[in-house]
Amino acid sequence: MLEKNIHTILGCDNNYSESKIVVFGAPYDGTTSYRPGTRFAASAIRNESYSMETYSPYQDKDLEDINVFDAGDLELPFGNPAKALEQIEVFSSEILKDEKIPFMIGGEHLVTLGAIRAVTQLHKDLHIIHFDAHSDLRDEYLGEPLSHATVIRRCWDLVGDNRIFQFGIRSGSKEEIYWGRKHVHTCFYNFNDLDYAVDILKDKPVYLTIDLDVLDTSVFPGTGTPEAGGVTFNELLNAIKKISNLNIVALDMTELSPPLDPSGASTALACKLLREILLYVYR
Amino acid sequence: MLEKNIHTILGCDNNYSESKIVVFGAPYDGTTSYRPGTRFAASAIRNESYSMETYSPYQDKDLEDINVFDAGDLELPFGNPAKALEQIEVFSSEILKDEKIPFMIGGEHLVTLGAIRAVTQLHKDLHIIHFDAHSDLRDEYLGEPLSHATVIRRCWDLVGDNRIFQFGIRSGSKEEIYWGRKHVHTCFYNFNDLDYAVDILKDKPVYLTIDLDVLDTSVFPGTGTPEAGGVTFNELLNAIKKISNLNIVALDMTELSPPLDPSGASTALACKLLREILLYVYR
Amino acid sequence: MLEKNIHTILGCDNNYSESKIVVFGAPYDGTTSYRPGTRFAASAIRNESYSMETYSPYQDKDLEDINVFDAGDLELPFGNPAKALEQIEVFSSEILKDEKIPFMIGGEHLVTLGAIRAVTQLHKDLHIIHFDAHSDLRDEYLGEPLSHATVIRRCWDLVGDNRIFQFGIRSGSKEEIYWGRKHVHTCFYNFNDLDYAVDILKDKPVYLTIDLDVLDTSVFPGTGTPEAGGVTFNELLNAIKKISNLNIVALDMTELSPPLDPSGASTALACKLLREILLYVYR
Amino acid sequence: MLEKNIHTILGCDNNYSESKIVVFGAPYDGTTSYRPGTRFAASAIRNESYSMETYSPYQDKDLEDINVFDAGDLELPFGNPAKALEQIEVFSSEILKDEKIPFMIGGEHLVTLGAIRAVTQLHKDLHIIHFDAHSDLRDEYLGEPLSHATVIRRCWDLVGDNRIFQFGIRSGSKEEIYWGRKHVHTCFYNFNDLDYAVDILKDKPVYLTIDLDVLDTSVFPGTGTPEAGGVTFNELLNAIKKISNLNIVALDMTELSPPLDPSGASTALACKLLREILLYVYR
Amino acid sequence: MLEKNIHTILGCDNNYSESKIVVFGAPYDGTTSYRPGTRFAASAIRNESYSMETYSPYQDKDLEDINVFDAGDLELPFGNPAKALEQIEVFSSEILKDEKIPFMIGGEHLVTLGAIRAVTQLHKDLHIIHFDAHSDLRDEYLGEPLSHATVIRRCWDLVGDNRIFQFGIRSGSKEEIYWGRKHVHTCFYNFNDLDYAVDILKDKPVYLTIDLDVLDTSVFPGTGTPEAGGVTFNELLNAIKKISNLNIVALDMTELSPPLDPSGASTALACKLLREILLYVYR
Amino acid sequence: MLEKNIHTILGCDNNYSESKIVVFGAPYDGTTSYRPGTRFAASAIRNESYSMETYSPYQDKDLEDINVFDAGDLELPFGNPAKALEQIEVFSSEILKDEKIPFMIGGEHLVTLGAIRAVTQLHKDLHIIHFDAHSDLRDEYLGEPLSHATVIRRCWDLVGDNRIFQFGIRSGSKEEIYWGRKHVHTCFYNFNDLDYAVDILKDKPVYLTIDLDVLDTSVFPGTGTPEAGGVTFNELLNAIKKISNLNIVALDMTELSPPLDPSGASTALACKLLREILLYVYR
Repeated sequence: MLEKNIHTILGCDNNYSESKIVVFGAPYDGTTSYRPGTRFAASAIRNESYSMETYSPYQDKDLEDINVFDAGDLELPFGNPAKALEQIEVFSSEILKDEKIPFMIGGEHLVTLGAIRAVTQLHKDLHIIHFDAHSDLRDEYLGEPLSHATVIRRCWDLVGDNRIFQFGIRSGSKEEIYWGRKHVHTCFYNFNDLDYAVDILKDKPVYLTIDLDVLDTSVFPGTGTPEAGGVTFNELLNAIKKISNLNIVALDMTELSPPLDPSGASTALACKLLREILLYVYR
Repeated sequence: MLEKNIHTILGCDNNYSESKIVVFGAPYDGTTSYRPGTRFAASAIRNESYSMETYSPYQDKDLEDINVFDAGDLELPFGNPAKALEQIEVFSSEILKDEKIPFMIGGEHLVTLGAIRAVTQLHKDLHIIHFDAHSDLRDEYLGEPLSHATVIRRCWDLVGDNRIFQFGIRSGSKEEIYWGRKHVHTCFYNFNDLDYAVDILKDKPVYLTIDLDVLDTSVFPGTGTPEAGGVTFNELLNAIKKISNLNIVALDMTELSPPLDPSGASTALACKLLREILLYVYR
Repeated sequence: MLEKNIHTILGCDNNYSESKIVVFGAPYDGTTSYRPGTRFAASAIRNESYSMETYSPYQDKDLEDINVFDAGDLELPFGNPAKALEQIEVFSSEILKDEKIPFMIGGEHLVTLGAIRAVTQLHKDLHIIHFDAHSDLRDEYLGEPLSHATVIRRCWDLVGDNRIFQFGIRSGSKEEIYWGRKHVHTCFYNFNDLDYAVDILKDKPVYLTIDLDVLDTSVFPGTGTPEAGGVTFNELLNAIKKISNLNIVALDMTELSPPLDPSGASTALACKLLREILLYVYR
Repeated sequence: MLEKNIHTILGCDNNYSESKIVVFGAPYDGTTSYRPGTRFAASAIRNESYSMETYSPYQDKDLEDINVFDAGDLELPFGNPAKALEQIEVFSSEILKDEKIPFMIGGEHLVTLGAIRAVTQLHKDLHIIHFDAHSDLRDEYLGEPLSHATVIRRCWDLVGDNRIFQFGIRSGSKEEIYWGRKHVHTCFYNFNDLDYAVDILKDKPVYLTIDLDVLDTSVFPGTGTPEAGGVTFNELLNAIKKISNLNIVALDMTELSPPLDPSGASTALACKLLREILLYVYR
Repeated sequence: MLEKNIHTILGCDNNYSESKIVVFGAPYDGTTSYRPGTRFAASAIRNESYSMETYSPYQDKDLEDINVFDAGDLELPFGNPAKALEQIEVFSSEILKDEKIPFMIGGEHLVTLGAIRAVTQLHKDLHIIHFDAHSDLRDEYLGEPLSHATVIRRCWDLVGDNRIFQFGIRSGSKEEIYWGRKHVHTCFYNFNDLDYAVDILKDKPVYLTIDLDVLDTSVFPGTGTPEAGGVTFNELLNAIKKISNLNIVALDMTELSPPLDPSGASTALACKLLREILLYVYR
Repeated sequence: MLEKNIHTILGCDNNYSESKIVVFGAPYDGTTSYRPGTRFAASAIRNESYSMETYSPYQDKDLEDINVFDAGDLELPFGNPAKALEQIEVFSSEILKDEKIPFMIGGEHLVTLGAIRAVTQLHKDLHIIHFDAHSDLRDEYLGEPLSHATVIRRCWDLVGDNRIFQFGIRSGSKEEIYWGRKHVHTCFYNFNDLDYAVDILKDKPVYLTIDLDVLDTSVFPGTGTPEAGGVTFNELLNAIKKISNLNIVALDMTELSPPLDPSGASTALACKLLREILLYVYR
């Protein structure tokens, strides 16, 4: 009998039960204020991963040798961010309950909140490492508390002061930047303080959220609000390597926008980064 | 003293007080389920109108000779359709209060609901002429009552049976098409029944809502859910001519998606249609 | 336990065993002489079908009510057309052996040859209905016998004279057009002779091959060698309706090229056509 | 010794001396008021012609059987329309002097003026057939007498009243349309009056200028100022057939804009049209 | 009474009279020799600035706290560079007369000449800082003295030897590069000599002209003649910081070409640079 | 008599007999496994070179002063890699026989094999310098021995152990990378070992093959399989300078894919690189 040729991120075709990491897409960009499109990111990565190698010369490891399950994309309602976050939370909780690591692919950055809600149920002491060009610390945006521009503030509502470590930040409103000085650790423009953070976070459960626009616009133009003056691919890779020995209990990668990536180069970079992160984080 | 070179739809640069029609953009596409982008429609029309003539050889009339005010774009929150609709309603009400005709440029089709709410306050007997490829009569979509796919059903909530006349319809779920048979007048694929409708609507206040995907995909590819088998530009123009003697108290034109219009031809068509409608409806 | 959200053409998510039609992608464009890209067609249709309705107002039928299996895409080697055709033949044969109808989505038109080889094993009396802008009757192209430009000639090698009925043809070399006069039935530009063909083919096993460039360039620009002067969507739909009572034992739809379809309108049309064909052919 | 593989419009690779028609590109779009790009038209046609057949099933004739010389592109200065026109005039004059027919590929429509200047030196009695969406009869545009929007008016300066026959016109300023009523023959929207014109022009030297935006936007979106409501490809082809027995002493085809033709379908149509015109006009 | 929602660069919505800097667009690309499109730059920046923050973490300053007037775009004739430059000169003169700083957004680089003409009327001792990949020192280009490739030579006609300081240059004809050695100060590839220039220019009136292609192609691909081997965003930002204490009496930023920026990343960078320059230069 | 304006890479318009280097296009991408398009590279470079300067400020040399012949593009069959390679071999052999240096512009990387076959006939002792992101050392790919992914392995079949020096490698299967350790010299990520290689190769005949994806994705997005973490333009330029004194007997530059380069920046970079290489290698 013929079987369907299943469409999966390359090298992530293990069974759910045997897998330690579960990748899934959260195709939501309903609050994106300028140019939407991140809803297509996980699907594009699935397609583009076809041209990626499963082997990493950086780590001398191979995706074929680790167990990862690609669960496909959630089906989220666009006009209702509250409900979308709920569905993400439920899904993430199930993965966590089975003692696996959820690795969510956004979507806009707001999706992170759904996953963080799930993780904080389990890990009261959760800390967050946040790579981004934007501080995302507004209390509301255009009158809305749930937005890509408020998501880290909403996470702070859950974890509180001194639990969030931001890197690569180079954009924000005056108000949120000033607020951030008192409530989170912000490293502007680069990863210079990362060793310090790693030291503090040594024994803590950590959530890693990567907004891909932390990368320089030259390196990653395919995103809705690109910010010049960012980090290179190698700098990001080294930063991930540095934190990979921490106890990362869940993670995400957001804000790839395939309609803004006509050459496909940003999507290809996201695939490669996904591979490297999986190989670094897996144990 | 230097004055700003104001950015306005060509020929719509009159003062508000002297104008009889008020054009405004409702740049909202927050519930778009597949490919967003209609939020940029009014802005694109404003830019592209620069290359349009103000004179219509079809009607031997000129935009320069009538008084229209282009109010620019509303600023709507993307993650909150209820609030976006509210703002549209308030804005439309103000125009209507001043005894002018609001002409809204979407955005996704959901924006129509905001304007219809405003109009039904004034015209209890409101009837709706609806040009579209999709019947938009679902009761909910992905669990949401407010959606581009439910908008005409929500309008029906306000105006009731036998008040809505649909033309050009060629797509829908089985359920909504069957529901429509009992509650609205639907003319599939074309404008064949239009004379009949004009006859019935002769003395009624009418809201005209045009989803531009009523046009064939060849004529109007620049939209999120193009549907083959639609009408030509000349057929649409003739239909508008036919109804232009009715008492049109408000109207809209929705679903142009500039990011899906790389040649600019769909945007140019929308500009031309806008001119023809303004010249037909103005009196 | 979590299950993968499987990525399938909308409404084609039945089990293999219960299905009567098996859709599969043959992502091959290795002989395309000018602008490649059809290899991405089936994948694009799978993505885009998300925004399609399963219900057809044209036929008052619903994909939800019939059993179709989407087998995903074959994995074909690009530099070796002979081997690619072999794999298509083997796959098609298996479907036919199980008394199901294979519905292949190209890829360039050459893929048809693989399926026809499988079908002629079973149906010695096979006839072919061929909708296309190009006659594809060359004996070789740039020295190669296996090419998108020779595919129907290669099919003629298998079925012989008076078995092939071409419609919509409006391009070819002088030599192949003259050759065609003696060996196949060619209806230029349109479907005018279709009734005649239907009459002849009444009791024959029929293979239907649709090169989507039979459509006018306005209707279907998203293809590698668009030809002006073609048929409309409604004309194509009517032609398919006319032949849908014949004994169609296998079929295909080829030459959608997503990289040449930046608006997505050609892909959306292909989805709609796929739905209508499935509903017409299914019994 | 190796020879260069010369880059030429397919089938137009004859020597200059043996050719009766000389095709050349006039890559100028320096006065284009909105979206430039027609400067790339002739080059794009040269590239795209690679995928065109030299044989016409419409006429049962083949480019291989006639003698046409493709002279490549002129090198024109963008900021100086007067000088660009001069160069076009000189080049056209040389072709005419050698008793050949110049067939210029624009560029914006202004280039026509250079060729007409050359032709009127030889043919004092020149008449012009003008296919276009726009009447191009302004006396000046943004203060400039030389512009794509004034080009036919400038031609009128040379040939005078009742010598210009326009077809397909559907856009213009009120002033130019009114002016046209008294000085040229204008057939709006279509080719309905063409027989009448053919009759008048029977024994006259004729210049044929085709602005490709005479075609409907669905058929030809790849142009800077597309106008809905135009003619189909078959209508244009029939019109050309009708006038092909006139004494056409020079001709042009303008306003293809490749940057606005991401699918390539408009360029492909221009290639096919070029082939058909060459085969019709050649004797 | 309703007011128009004015379309302005974010944070540049002050009144003319209270403003110290006046931003305006000079949408001219009429001499661009290869790929035009810079005419859309100012309009694109106006649209895209919507997604920019008004606050700069680099300077801890906010556009909301300074007074800048965005005057919109000039309306310039494309086929007549002399007249276009005249209009730019007149407009710039008016701003200067009111003791404000004109900040022009091109357009192609030629527009700089119009502004320089205005400034040299007031400041006989004017010096020019020129950031660019191309030296623009030709005496004529394709026979024309007014061209994007001759603009700095034309400025030299006005200011004379040793008044022009070029940085980042990495392209030019042999002739112009050799000519430059005797008449201007050229720093190739980077900003290494900038301190030297700042020292010399300490007490001089300075015009700053930035051709954005001084940036590396990776950082700024959205321009007509990108040149590999350029500077990074941070290097450009630091260079601007260094010169911001000079007496900058007028400035411009040219050569963004939105049609060549499908991802929007170059436009976003231009917005951010505009903000930083405004905050640096304002006093 | 009029002559054709020949379409040639700028500055490469010398006669064959007087030229020392012969540039030609090998427009083949028939085995490209993911996104094809490199077949258009040489043609795009020919067009784009129009906007390039012939003078290099890096070397103070000018293409006008050296003799290079641009032979245009070969015409290669897409479905038959063996035959395509044969044609490349024959063409390269002819150039070599005439004691000129062939400089091939791909196409996909597989084309290199055709040229290497020609060179190894003449130079039994041939060594290869290979700049690439991918090691291309697989023994077969999808069952095929001739593929862009196996090309350097096929070259190794001809030259044997210790003759191939790879630089910039950062992608490959585990198997090929391990195989490479024993048979070729591989420098990962950069050019660090280049001096060592130059030393060894001092007196050897050298073939230089540059897969342009050796560049970082930010620098060169316009290619089918971009790999983050690559070298900058200046690093590549310096590497070429370093090896330019070796005895380079033939060379190529592959994998530019114009359909993936919507801004044109990658094509412009390839033009500039071509100029610099020609000026470095020519003697």
